[in-house]
Amino acid sequence: MAEGVTVAAEQLAALTEAIFAAKGMAREHAKTVDEVLIWADLRGAPSHAVQRIPRYIEIIEAREMNLRPAITIAKELRGAVLIDADRAPGQVSMSFAAAEAARKAKESGIGLALVRRTTHTAALGFYTRLAALEGMAALAGSASWPNMIYHGTREAGVATNPLSIAVPRGRGEPMILDMATGVVALGKIVHAARSGQRIPEGWALDQGGNPTTDPKAAVLPLPL
Amino acid sequence: MAEGVTVAAEQLAALTEAIFAAKGMAREHAKTVDEVLIWADLRGAPSHAVQRIPRYIEIIEAREMNLRPAITIAKELRGAVLIDADRAPGQVSMSFAAAEAARKAKESGIGLALVRRTTHTAALGFYTRLAALEGMAALAGSASWPNMIYHGTREAGVATNPLSIAVPRGRGEPMILDMATGVVALGKIVHAARSGQRIPEGWALDQGGNPTTDPKAAVLPLPL
Repeated sequence: MAEGVTVAAEQLAALTEAIFAAKGMAREHAKTVDEVLIWADLRGAPSHAVQRIPRYIEIIEAREMNLRPAITIAKELRGAVLIDADRAPGQVSMSFAAAEAARKAKESGIGLALVRRTTHTAALGFYTRLAALEGMAALAGSASWPNMIYHGTREAGVATNPLSIAVPRGRGEPMILDMATGVVALGKIVHAARSGQRIPEGWALDQGGNPTTDPKAAVLPLPL
Repeated sequence: MAEGVTVAAEQLAALTEAIFAAKGMAREHAKTVDEVLIWADLRGAPSHAVQRIPRYIEIIEAREMNLRPAITIAKELRGAVLIDADRAPGQVSMSFAAAEAARKAKESGIGLALVRRTTHTAALGFYTRLAALEGMAALAGSASWPNMIYHGTREAGVATNPLSIAVPRGRGEPMILDMATGVVALGKIVHAARSGQRIPEGWALDQGGNPTTDPKAAVLPLPL
């Protein structure tokens, strides 16, 4: 880790919330986004935390993220919902989905929530944790375009397939798995680039398919 | 592979069914057991195929497998069932469970079947395939006692956690993942022992926690 300024979580949360509110995000949504990002920072996963803010600002300004979304349930079955997130902040879409899946599971013994038209999901473990805190085992995945090398190739052909599984424990925090199938999460390469560090050999290839330790040149992450 | 006798699948199926029927298994159950075992042999997974028969005979004779089981639904929710398999042949329990999960999924959009008091599951992919042939994505797992080394240890501390995922395709056979988290399935070590082959280095440790290439001494499989 590069040396940096240490900021108390509460202060960082307040700043994060204020930034998004200033861009026009509904205050309650800003609070949710902030909560998910700070959670990732606090558990030592800066790859999925407040370092994402500049990128979020970009997608807000490009109108890819909708600051006043109308999240709707596009289809509902007894145990499942399909949610149209109207390009809401991913944290808002996914928190809504986690609550819906939990509601269905309470009614039916198992519940499924699918989300379409959402934006960056951030740390999946946050959402499975929500369900686990209510006493349920939870599994979440996230789709993306092909953004990872397949073994033996030099071009992106598969997704990193983020996956989280959480199970409640008798007391205390749930047990949470939160991973992707790359050697590292993409966000860790972004984090290294932002903090001016080299990345270890074996993390990624450059555009030409050659190994690199320069996080700015590293565009093709390698698989587990 | 050691050299052996080649037998047509139909003949092997008839023999398998006759063996179990002769031991007193209901004919329809013998047919199910036979179908699952032969399927594994035909797809090149002898570890989970007819080589298991001698072991099944042992557990029949030890009365661990119940040849006249009363499979019941111990608990039912809108989207989920808990099945008490009454120590039925695992193939019978799991085929029943796959059908129940599919029935629930058709009604509720997602379905869950949990099975208790069953016997050896055999190839998990057979059951996820059943659901995929009906147009559904399916996921199945199987619990066991700790039977695998954890990285850096010399004692069994975790299970191999068999996992199968199947998804339907437009036409033809579903796409099926069928794996465990060991370097190899336990059954491959058993298969090597039965067919008099050595196993490669890196598959397993012996009782003392030392690497071995003798499948009969190999009791602690290594993790992926």
